[in-house]
Amino acid sequence: MRLSEIAKLIGADFSGNDIEITSMNTLSDASSEQLSFVANSKYVKEISTSQAAAIICDKATASEVPEGSVALVVDAPYWQMAVLSAHFAPSLEDSEAAQALVGEGSIVSPKAEVANGAIIGKNTQIMAGAYIGSSTVIGDNTIIYPNVVVYRDCKIGNNCIIHANSTIGSDGFGFATNNLGEHKKIYQNGNVVLEDDIEIGSSTTVDRAVFGSTLLKKGVRIDNLVQIGHNCEIGEYSVFVAQSGSAGSTKLGRNVVVGGQSAFAGHLEIAPFSTFAARSGITKSIKKSGLTYSGFPLMDHKLWLKLQVKLARLIK
Amino acid sequence: MRLSEIAKLIGADFSGNDIEITSMNTLSDASSEQLSFVANSKYVKEISTSQAAAIICDKATASEVPEGSVALVVDAPYWQMAVLSAHFAPSLEDSEAAQALVGEGSIVSPKAEVANGAIIGKNTQIMAGAYIGSSTVIGDNTIIYPNVVVYRDCKIGNNCIIHANSTIGSDGFGFATNNLGEHKKIYQNGNVVLEDDIEIGSSTTVDRAVFGSTLLKKGVRIDNLVQIGHNCEIGEYSVFVAQSGSAGSTKLGRNVVVGGQSAFAGHLEIAPFSTFAARSGITKSIKKSGLTYSGFPLMDHKLWLKLQVKLARLIK
Amino acid sequence: MRLSEIAKLIGADFSGNDIEITSMNTLSDASSEQLSFVANSKYVKEISTSQAAAIICDKATASEVPEGSVALVVDAPYWQMAVLSAHFAPSLEDSEAAQALVGEGSIVSPKAEVANGAIIGKNTQIMAGAYIGSSTVIGDNTIIYPNVVVYRDCKIGNNCIIHANSTIGSDGFGFATNNLGEHKKIYQNGNVVLEDDIEIGSSTTVDRAVFGSTLLKKGVRIDNLVQIGHNCEIGEYSVFVAQSGSAGSTKLGRNVVVGGQSAFAGHLEIAPFSTFAARSGITKSIKKSGLTYSGFPLMDHKLWLKLQVKLARLIK
Repeated sequence: MRLSEIAKLIGADFSGNDIEITSMNTLSDASSEQLSFVANSKYVKEISTSQAAAIICDKATASEVPEGSVALVVDAPYWQMAVLSAHFAPSLEDSEAAQALVGEGSIVSPKAEVANGAIIGKNTQIMAGAYIGSSTVIGDNTIIYPNVVVYRDCKIGNNCIIHANSTIGSDGFGFATNNLGEHKKIYQNGNVVLEDDIEIGSSTTVDRAVFGSTLLKKGVRIDNLVQIGHNCEIGEYSVFVAQSGSAGSTKLGRNVVVGGQSAFAGHLEIAPFSTFAARSGITKSIKKSGLTYSGFPLMDHKLWLKLQVKLARLIK
Repeated sequence: MRLSEIAKLIGADFSGNDIEITSMNTLSDASSEQLSFVANSKYVKEISTSQAAAIICDKATASEVPEGSVALVVDAPYWQMAVLSAHFAPSLEDSEAAQALVGEGSIVSPKAEVANGAIIGKNTQIMAGAYIGSSTVIGDNTIIYPNVVVYRDCKIGNNCIIHANSTIGSDGFGFATNNLGEHKKIYQNGNVVLEDDIEIGSSTTVDRAVFGSTLLKKGVRIDNLVQIGHNCEIGEYSVFVAQSGSAGSTKLGRNVVVGGQSAFAGHLEIAPFSTFAARSGITKSIKKSGLTYSGFPLMDHKLWLKLQVKLARLIK
Repeated sequence: MRLSEIAKLIGADFSGNDIEITSMNTLSDASSEQLSFVANSKYVKEISTSQAAAIICDKATASEVPEGSVALVVDAPYWQMAVLSAHFAPSLEDSEAAQALVGEGSIVSPKAEVANGAIIGKNTQIMAGAYIGSSTVIGDNTIIYPNVVVYRDCKIGNNCIIHANSTIGSDGFGFATNNLGEHKKIYQNGNVVLEDDIEIGSSTTVDRAVFGSTLLKKGVRIDNLVQIGHNCEIGEYSVFVAQSGSAGSTKLGRNVVVGGQSAFAGHLEIAPFSTFAARSGITKSIKKSGLTYSGFPLMDHKLWLKLQVKLARLIK
């Protein structure tokens, strides 16, 4: 989409080099063909080093936009970003893409749907009722159990197993809210990438990124009814027990163990080899690796045990 | 069903005007063609003003039944109501209804199932593996992602998005239990109504009402793996984050925000613009609007933070 | 598989009677045609009375293996058991089995998939998008709602109702982990057995046993989004409210009531008629029947109420 068109859609003034914008991205990740935005004072410091072709911002931050980048000034940058996200969203399916490619030895149930443009590797099984979206790529020796849904543009590696009724690549939970309390959807134009040797339980949901990818690294094990939010990154061999989850943009190191019904807040970084007992609530990043935690608020597991002893005394 | 037939099915005496009963309902909502029941002393005060044609009750409460309404006296009113609920349940599908109507510009995947009697609006997409039940009505510009199931008799508005593997209109969790500990299903003969501009995540479940409707109002946003119980009413623009839920018959005002893994007990009323931090457990109604809460038991969010400081001191 | 072959696969020495091994099982349940293993000192005492044809063990425990049983000595018995489990896993579907049998009066949607070797009773409905695996047996008068997935080799009784998008028989969450932190899948070669008169909500998951069966007894009621782990046994008429769950191998007596978002740790035994308030966390077995509990850690419900009063005082 041309910059002039974008400016018009969001009611911003624009005069200058009317280049073609390919997509949207964060300030730090945007390339010189991408559009970015700043909607939170926390990110103002990232404006000056952004490579974005243009940045949606309000009047107060417009002066921070570096030379070489166009400031698109609006009253409500986050809302306008949401407005634009719809225009960058691909169609639900690429009806004009080539028919899906299916590798040697793979079995696709006639009752599964593999959309145009998808690519299935060798010796992979796509069972009845499964749905594989356009441009999604699935590796070799992978099993997609019945009624799994993989949205478009995702990648699933080799030797993966996805159990029944799970969803990979549904939209992350993102919207802007105006001062009337109305919501505007932020289209989630990223994807999900699952590396090799991953197993995912039944009725688990892994949301696609708003920009970029939600990433599960090699060897991850996810149980049933788990929620992985958009833009999370789950380290190698990490384990999520049933009914646990993570809000968006949290990054786990390798071999993190997440007990049942535990959950992470968003935008955290969790050191490798951390272990969280069942029903932990993790709201802060963890820098030291190899420790065990419990509780909500989270604390050292031994401290949590000590606290329970103290509480028991309160009622004696 | 004739009153005489009903009386016979539940072993109640009956002599009088043998009118046709169309369905069952609560004491307060029943019309003069409906049957009601009283099974809990809490509701005895609603008997005298009930418009119901007949009321199933025990001996002790029979005298409260107003003139113009027939008392059907049984030993176990709740169990007998469950017995009758099966007789008022419609068939799973209306095989004799007309073929579904699909509006202009709508795309229904040949791998979706749209049951007879359903009506799909304009420019709506029903993707592969989705199921739309008999007499269900879906509006315009709505997206039903793969493998979503919408049971019969539900209504979904315009501009809605329902993500993969979610279920709208499954039976509420209702049964009577006798003194042997055995359960008898209470058929859920109500429905679910979703107004316009609603987005629902993947693997979320919204149960149909036992009588009347479970109602999600305009602009509601529901994340993944959320449970909405039967007969809930969710106010405009309210938000449920992943893995949260509500038991039955709870009513939320507009713009209530429900944090991840939070849950409401049943039969509550929650003031508009209330905010619940992650993992809140709400067991009482909230009358004052615009406040923020945490914890289980629930308390003011700042009080909860203060409590955590006190607890941390206990183990120092 | 011959014992000699098994020994070769896991790098164990073997010389002796090269009998055919039919499958794997626990020390206590293995028959003289089955293979077992000991990977946890807790189970060493069960070796001497095991009927297993052969036992995978490490050097230190080899001397405990009784006469008549072959010790297969390896460095990492649990890992090697995982290696072997793949070799005992059946194919995803029995393409060579006879076409499924469907009883009189039953309706199978042409959009459902009933795999070869399955048997459906009388007057049962298998709705669109449902999947019934090979050799799975379903009784009479049962309703399988759209997009339910029942994996192979399971049994579902008469008069059961399984709501949309639920999964019965997906793999339990089992794997061995080596000292590099890598995981090896333990194939779950058991099944799920649902007795008669059971109702299961939508998007609920019941995992198949690693050996033997996950068992839900007569009259059980399970709400939406519930997780039942492998090898659990749920007693007659027990009730799980939405978003609750149980880790593996826990056994509940009859008429246990499990509140919403509650969860059991694994390997517990719970007395009949126990009641758990919403969000209980049960980590110890319960021997006395008929009591009510709350909290995490779990305590008597009245004690929990008392504790909340004390905590409220802390912040006054």
